[in-house]
Amino acid sequence: MAQPINRFKADLREIQFVLLEQLRLGDVLGKAPFEDWGEDEVKMVLEETYRYAREVSGPLNHVGDRGCRLEGGRVLTPEGFKEAWNKLYEAGWKKISVPAEFGGQGAPAGLGAAVEELLSGANTSFNMYSGLAVGAAEVIAEFGTDRQKALFAQRMFDGQWGGTMCLTEAQAGSDVGAATTGATKNDDGTYNIKGTKVFISGGDHDLTENIVHLVLARIEGAAPGTKGLSLFIVPRLRVGDDGSLGGSNDVEVGSIEHKMGINGSSTCVLNFGDNDRCVGELVGAAEHQGIRQMFKMMNVARIAVGLQGLALASSAYLNALEYAKDRKQGPSVKDWKNPEAPRVPIIQHPNVRQMLLELKAKVEGIRALIFKLAIHQDRSRGLAGVDDDKASYHSGQVDLLTPLVKAYSSDQAFRICEIAIQVFGGAGYCQDHPVEQYCRDSKIFSIYEGTNSIQALDLVARKLGQAGGRNAQAFLGDIAKFVATHKAHADLGPAVANLEKAHEAVAGTAMQFLAWFQAGEMELVPLAANRFLEMMSELALGWLLLDAAVIAVERSGKVAASHPDRAFYEGKRHAAVWFAANVLPSVVGKAKVLSKADRSPLQIPDAAFATV
Amino acid sequence: MAQPINRFKADLREIQFVLLEQLRLGDVLGKAPFEDWGEDEVKMVLEETYRYAREVSGPLNHVGDRGCRLEGGRVLTPEGFKEAWNKLYEAGWKKISVPAEFGGQGAPAGLGAAVEELLSGANTSFNMYSGLAVGAAEVIAEFGTDRQKALFAQRMFDGQWGGTMCLTEAQAGSDVGAATTGATKNDDGTYNIKGTKVFISGGDHDLTENIVHLVLARIEGAAPGTKGLSLFIVPRLRVGDDGSLGGSNDVEVGSIEHKMGINGSSTCVLNFGDNDRCVGELVGAAEHQGIRQMFKMMNVARIAVGLQGLALASSAYLNALEYAKDRKQGPSVKDWKNPEAPRVPIIQHPNVRQMLLELKAKVEGIRALIFKLAIHQDRSRGLAGVDDDKASYHSGQVDLLTPLVKAYSSDQAFRICEIAIQVFGGAGYCQDHPVEQYCRDSKIFSIYEGTNSIQALDLVARKLGQAGGRNAQAFLGDIAKFVATHKAHADLGPAVANLEKAHEAVAGTAMQFLAWFQAGEMELVPLAANRFLEMMSELALGWLLLDAAVIAVERSGKVAASHPDRAFYEGKRHAAVWFAANVLPSVVGKAKVLSKADRSPLQIPDAAFATV
Repeated sequence: MAQPINRFKADLREIQFVLLEQLRLGDVLGKAPFEDWGEDEVKMVLEETYRYAREVSGPLNHVGDRGCRLEGGRVLTPEGFKEAWNKLYEAGWKKISVPAEFGGQGAPAGLGAAVEELLSGANTSFNMYSGLAVGAAEVIAEFGTDRQKALFAQRMFDGQWGGTMCLTEAQAGSDVGAATTGATKNDDGTYNIKGTKVFISGGDHDLTENIVHLVLARIEGAAPGTKGLSLFIVPRLRVGDDGSLGGSNDVEVGSIEHKMGINGSSTCVLNFGDNDRCVGELVGAAEHQGIRQMFKMMNVARIAVGLQGLALASSAYLNALEYAKDRKQGPSVKDWKNPEAPRVPIIQHPNVRQMLLELKAKVEGIRALIFKLAIHQDRSRGLAGVDDDKASYHSGQVDLLTPLVKAYSSDQAFRICEIAIQVFGGAGYCQDHPVEQYCRDSKIFSIYEGTNSIQALDLVARKLGQAGGRNAQAFLGDIAKFVATHKAHADLGPAVANLEKAHEAVAGTAMQFLAWFQAGEMELVPLAANRFLEMMSELALGWLLLDAAVIAVERSGKVAASHPDRAFYEGKRHAAVWFAANVLPSVVGKAKVLSKADRSPLQIPDAAFATV
Repeated sequence: MAQPINRFKADLREIQFVLLEQLRLGDVLGKAPFEDWGEDEVKMVLEETYRYAREVSGPLNHVGDRGCRLEGGRVLTPEGFKEAWNKLYEAGWKKISVPAEFGGQGAPAGLGAAVEELLSGANTSFNMYSGLAVGAAEVIAEFGTDRQKALFAQRMFDGQWGGTMCLTEAQAGSDVGAATTGATKNDDGTYNIKGTKVFISGGDHDLTENIVHLVLARIEGAAPGTKGLSLFIVPRLRVGDDGSLGGSNDVEVGSIEHKMGINGSSTCVLNFGDNDRCVGELVGAAEHQGIRQMFKMMNVARIAVGLQGLALASSAYLNALEYAKDRKQGPSVKDWKNPEAPRVPIIQHPNVRQMLLELKAKVEGIRALIFKLAIHQDRSRGLAGVDDDKASYHSGQVDLLTPLVKAYSSDQAFRICEIAIQVFGGAGYCQDHPVEQYCRDSKIFSIYEGTNSIQALDLVARKLGQAGGRNAQAFLGDIAKFVATHKAHADLGPAVANLEKAHEAVAGTAMQFLAWFQAGEMELVPLAANRFLEMMSELALGWLLLDAAVIAVERSGKVAASHPDRAFYEGKRHAAVWFAANVLPSVVGKAKVLSKADRSPLQIPDAAFATV
């Protein structure tokens, strides 16, 4: 029943607009560290990656939904994955952002984000295997010894070996510090690893000849909590110094999970050292650095999850749009009492049109937010050592926006898929269209790499106050400046006024958190954190959508009416106006609710929830 | 992998509270037409139905998720369904609400709703087969000839034959009037039926020896649109006057859908008369009455869909609650900086507690709304011919609340399942727990039996103005009276104040619709309708939760502190306070947004949505 037909859709014009016209990626191109990159290269990579996505990995997305199989202790990935893997590394799309010292093209993160949107959207599950390999390789590239870089990271970047991150244990999920996997030092400096990790994405597969697990474990006698954790390189097969493969390293797949979605991505229980023969080596040389090292990968992964959400949300939107233009049903609302009126495409029905505009505004706003974060990374790198103050402003924004990108994108991706299904009606509930799979696949995004409640606490308990509060102040300052500049905009002024109110609401609620912390009202913080993350994300989206609209309104006037860019720019304007009119007011509403500090969730006794 | 283990949970104490203590079902018990019913009978039926649900159909819910198979042109239902069907009709739970003339127990609709919550929640897919049979039988019972009642309806009520409703065609979904299935009169008064129906739930199965399809078709020469449709009884196998089964009636299963959920319920393409040998008979005697007759079933089905949403939402909540009490993770927020602090059950984390309280409030509010509607039906029946004014008040409320029950329950069921998954974390994404299936199953509720946009238009374009606006006025008047009575409530006063503001907001927006209709601004109506339905539903929930809280606060004081009812009543109070503080303010916010009448969805050109 599952045919290899591509259903992934992307709007490259829109992606290019955000990267180049709105966020001016061009500022960093052609100079260190992106000397070899220009706008033409950026466009070429996007076009060619999209071709790979449509022709190779996209057609395997629905097929992959059948899932992985565990046979003879090994995971078999869905049909076609291995061939697509080989083509991916032949074409080099997964090495675009890899540093030149590892043979990559060292592309800016802005472009890297767009490439990931295309690769992830085409086939979320398939893209996770390579994403995890790259993520793990980056940890070794940053913290490993020269030998480890050459032996492990290089092969992982090249797609020769896979990679995983092994944090979670049955009793240690959100509470990473509760991990009990142990490490005992051997005479040769290696460690014996013993323990069971669960929910390990790509924990086993048949795409590469070896898999390098990065395992958080506690060396005998180390401190409790996260501080006592060290990070180990634990290959599935033992490895000689020349990269030759030895025998089993006593890493066994206990089972694989049967899930709601991302079925093409294996989710494994991994048993390390059941026979006391599992050997690992420290990443780098120092013990007890595991959590700091893993957080390098975790932060990258959180942004990647945001991109996963964006990617599915965008393709869900574009599929719903296509369907709405094609599917005829009912007469126009203007003819609703005439049974013989011509049937119209459902895009002409106002409620469908509104759903589509909501999808457009949210997808494009989320894209702008994630690409903004990525380009902050690029600017920070370019300015390091040149203007350290500016560099630290940009890196501060990366830190601040990471929880927004992870949590808001993932929550909204699920909602966007839900609405896309609704546009399709009954057809959307069936596997003939991709949106039901997108919806199922996307549900995990709000959970893994730190649940969205963890992201919200990261935002309010760490990021708001980071650098003495300067990062948050700079963010709010950027928006205040935008408001001041465009408040009197002839066309967009009323929308900017809504942005201003949302800005005040977010700033006010941020101060309220400060007051709660100072008063020791710690329990109120997690009650309000998720909604505050949503408020701040919506403020950011409103800002970036209006920023795009200002540019679009200006450029639209300079484009011939018949040029497709005219409609494109008009669309940017309408998306911003819709968001400002329909979403930004809810930011003010949420602030009012939070200001009342309702304590009912703290006051209700456990026994009062239900009698069962 | 799928083991027959029940995971359905219900809180009978809560169900009884809503039925008996809050909505006073007792008022109608013991008198016509419910002479044989008392509170003890109600409680006994609930307990015994719950036992059947837990022991028989509940254990088949996860098993049934594997889906139906189409073999040799026939649908095979999942393993165990046939045996559960037999037990269902032996026990008689599906005949509780069937009229006495058909051998049923003629239970009040309030009890019937609670019974359906239990049966549907235990196994949504399985319950659809009998639900459709009963629904189709009710149409024949109301509109059919005596012969049809005895021949068809009786066997359908008895579970001997199945039943379906066949409206949808490929080009006629929301636009039912576009149906082209044709009917040609034969000399013997029967009709030859020819056409293809799609998305037919229970369109074929192996649970009964015959299936009676109710088919909307257009008699040759009839008017276009819904007015020209007639309703036909079309059995799968031909039927002799004594009920004996003949040969094939030329009804063939073209295919079955592969869906996101409700996989145990077959969804069929049905071809009628491919060989010109499909014979049907009119329901009753009159032609062109099809849409009116089908709406009888449709209204019942819409309430049933609301119950499906409630049922899964409630079990999702109770499963999440159990998990949250059991699952330990991380220290208390009060000890968050101490890595050696004891791990606590996650219900102690404020964010989890808030999610649970949100689930509780919404589930219990939705339950109160649906049961309220059902008891309006009962009161209306009891008062008909006794006090016709009062009877028509109650039946008017049934009409008014039906779209709220269908749309709000179904939208929220999906959200509630989403939050329940979030409470479980990664475990919730796996099939080891029921919530991911609930989430998938529930997505169809917002689509079938009239999409939720159709419900919203039904509300604003028909129901608000029905009976000269009296039904809506009575609804708002009931809430105004509640506000006036309890505004100064020592404990709940502030929550009631929020209800009052929401009431004003809903009343104001209703007037705005009137203004739009009068000004011919038809296109604004569908833009605002869904949000208005949400506002009115939230107002209704806020009212009913506070109504319950007033009763609970009063009774709580009279119960010994050690009695489990003390905690139960406290829970009712907290749910209402949470909802009033956290949801009701958003009703006011939505009214403000709607008052601005944003037209951006109407203004954006088609070509501006995307460049692909």
